[in-house]
Amino acid sequence: MSKLTEETVKNKVADRVLSMRSSAVRDLFAAANRDDIISLAGGMPDVSLLPAEAVQKAAEAAYDTNRKEALQYGGTPGRPETAKVFSMIMETGGVPGVDPADILITTGAQEALDLLGKTFINPGDVILCEGPTYLGALQAFAAYQPEIICIPFDEDGMKMDLLEEELQKHGKGGVKFLYTIPNFQNPGGVTLSLERRKRLLELSEEYDFMVLEDDPYGRLRYEGEPITPLKALFDQVIYLGTISKTFAPGLRTGWIAAPSAVIEKVNLMKQGTDLCGSTFDQVIVEHYFTDTPWEETLAKFVDTYAERKDAMLAALEEFMPEDVTWTHPTGGFFVWLTAPENVDLVALLPQALEQGVIYTPGNGFFPDGETGKNCARLAFCFESPENLRAAIERMAKVIEDSRA
Amino acid sequence: MSKLTEETVKNKVADRVLSMRSSAVRDLFAAANRDDIISLAGGMPDVSLLPAEAVQKAAEAAYDTNRKEALQYGGTPGRPETAKVFSMIMETGGVPGVDPADILITTGAQEALDLLGKTFINPGDVILCEGPTYLGALQAFAAYQPEIICIPFDEDGMKMDLLEEELQKHGKGGVKFLYTIPNFQNPGGVTLSLERRKRLLELSEEYDFMVLEDDPYGRLRYEGEPITPLKALFDQVIYLGTISKTFAPGLRTGWIAAPSAVIEKVNLMKQGTDLCGSTFDQVIVEHYFTDTPWEETLAKFVDTYAERKDAMLAALEEFMPEDVTWTHPTGGFFVWLTAPENVDLVALLPQALEQGVIYTPGNGFFPDGETGKNCARLAFCFESPENLRAAIERMAKVIEDSRA
Repeated sequence: MSKLTEETVKNKVADRVLSMRSSAVRDLFAAANRDDIISLAGGMPDVSLLPAEAVQKAAEAAYDTNRKEALQYGGTPGRPETAKVFSMIMETGGVPGVDPADILITTGAQEALDLLGKTFINPGDVILCEGPTYLGALQAFAAYQPEIICIPFDEDGMKMDLLEEELQKHGKGGVKFLYTIPNFQNPGGVTLSLERRKRLLELSEEYDFMVLEDDPYGRLRYEGEPITPLKALFDQVIYLGTISKTFAPGLRTGWIAAPSAVIEKVNLMKQGTDLCGSTFDQVIVEHYFTDTPWEETLAKFVDTYAERKDAMLAALEEFMPEDVTWTHPTGGFFVWLTAPENVDLVALLPQALEQGVIYTPGNGFFPDGETGKNCARLAFCFESPENLRAAIERMAKVIEDSRA
Repeated sequence: MSKLTEETVKNKVADRVLSMRSSAVRDLFAAANRDDIISLAGGMPDVSLLPAEAVQKAAEAAYDTNRKEALQYGGTPGRPETAKVFSMIMETGGVPGVDPADILITTGAQEALDLLGKTFINPGDVILCEGPTYLGALQAFAAYQPEIICIPFDEDGMKMDLLEEELQKHGKGGVKFLYTIPNFQNPGGVTLSLERRKRLLELSEEYDFMVLEDDPYGRLRYEGEPITPLKALFDQVIYLGTISKTFAPGLRTGWIAAPSAVIEKVNLMKQGTDLCGSTFDQVIVEHYFTDTPWEETLAKFVDTYAERKDAMLAALEEFMPEDVTWTHPTGGFFVWLTAPENVDLVALLPQALEQGVIYTPGNGFFPDGETGKNCARLAFCFESPENLRAAIERMAKVIEDSRA
């Protein structure tokens, strides 16, 4: 074969690769390893809050009591014992009665997104999501070349009037599925109201599209009462769960809960994708949620993140120019900030780095990579309240300086 | 949305799902949990041979010394420290000098197959492989709808004259890539000779196709001298490695070593597929291969499997009818058995179960699902020599009875 250079490889890759954007920002971040830089960019849970003894106890099950199973290949859908634990977690989160047989375990919820795209998307299919939405969902779906259409949100989540307008354009059966993060959306931080959840499900029936409910942050509520999950309102919803925010993302364990006809097809696609997930990690996850006081640890997460969220909102209020706005999350990891149209937060990143702060510019959360350059996702999950305050002060200065 | 039944889901799935075959045999196997059944079907390493203390020592690094990193998200290409270990493993396996930056870590080598398919295959692209070949590779590639063409092998691996004939049909640039398992092929058990390896690389240059070298079994040689890997003969080869057979498949850790232009594109596809692999498992793997006497443990694997291989070959010689033939592996996990054309080993599976033995019928290893019904893959890796002898005796009886 000829030498595999950038040039020859470009001529060999599949068309779908051309629809993928590499994140230029990611490269910039990789360069940003200076100690004095405060990051509002990553969506990383603070795993230092996990009690060491709980982690060890859960790990012991994998290297000791369940060793032979944990080291061996598992079934493609994952360990039935672990699925049972996920059914229990869903029950404590407001979705009772999910049959563990209707749960398929994935390598993080990211793999769930890929598998659902792989199972359902033909090139050109129309799919809907919030705009902005989770970057990783856009990447997962883009590989299967759909037309992705974004529906704007306000503080009550996706706007149902705009959704209905869009649905009318495509007619019944014209949309393959709608992807939503109803709780503390990534990157918006907003939560879909109960009224809109009900309306969304009505529309899904009227226009016959599937609903994918992605719920990584649902357990991280800092104020107010939980809102009934879509999956609890209608059992045909395809629900995506993960332990990345309630336990540890390094264990890459998520799941899909869906009607068995869906699970069967997704399972077929997973056979070729990775055969099975890590049984070792599944055993650990299973024991973490049965043998350790995980709800106490979760309460500690909630207290810590709540304090950080408050610190960020207070700092935004204190430092940001008057014409900058932001969302007011009651949970999750993120605030969505909107500067005036003429402020380009992509172009300002080098100045921000200079000032010792990084954030994720908003355009990465739109399929066109262009919309949202005046916006940014600010993560409050990982830094201390003091650092968050300093970071927002620095960012405000960058925005102000850009207009001087 | 309408209820997601088998019927409605069938109308919603992407076209690629229709090109996937579910394994009917898998269902039969699931039913075969009787204690008196000896399995020649699975390709499972015997993880009970792993020293408990080595596993614990490696796990300790993940839950204790490297805890924070092991529990957190990692980079998409995987931990650089783990890539360094894989470069070392490749060096001890005859491929020196691979830059760890040219290694991307995957969720088992199965994900490597999926990612390479996702990166390179357009619907209709021609790809070549041995026939029969690894079922999981067929499943991984089939999702991207290529035309898969099989080249027969003999005891010296893929037949180069038949390969050349096929290449002539497609012309220069007419084949996207060739996938091969040169050492102790799955399911064939055969090994590509050095002479043919060199010829294969010549042909790859003449006809300009990429070569994917999948090497799960290379370290499990029971006789003779290792043959130089394709990757060592030509550094542009795309090499797939795994720790599933030298350590533990439950940790789902494999890798791709390839020119950086390839790694870059594969990395882009992996971002959307699962974001990153399990950092927890990568830390364990890393420490297993640096802090424990893994080559001693490997020697124990080799001794045990060698004995089982000999037992199976002796039993085949002793019990099989004269018109049945089989390959004579010098390593790996499998023997490929060929019965006369009129013996249907798919149809005979229920009788085999009745007799207390299962095997994998050969048709699963061909893309059409039809060729090879008179063949079977026999795994000698998991059962004791006594059990293997009994299993072959039972299988021979099933074949003989079918002709009575």
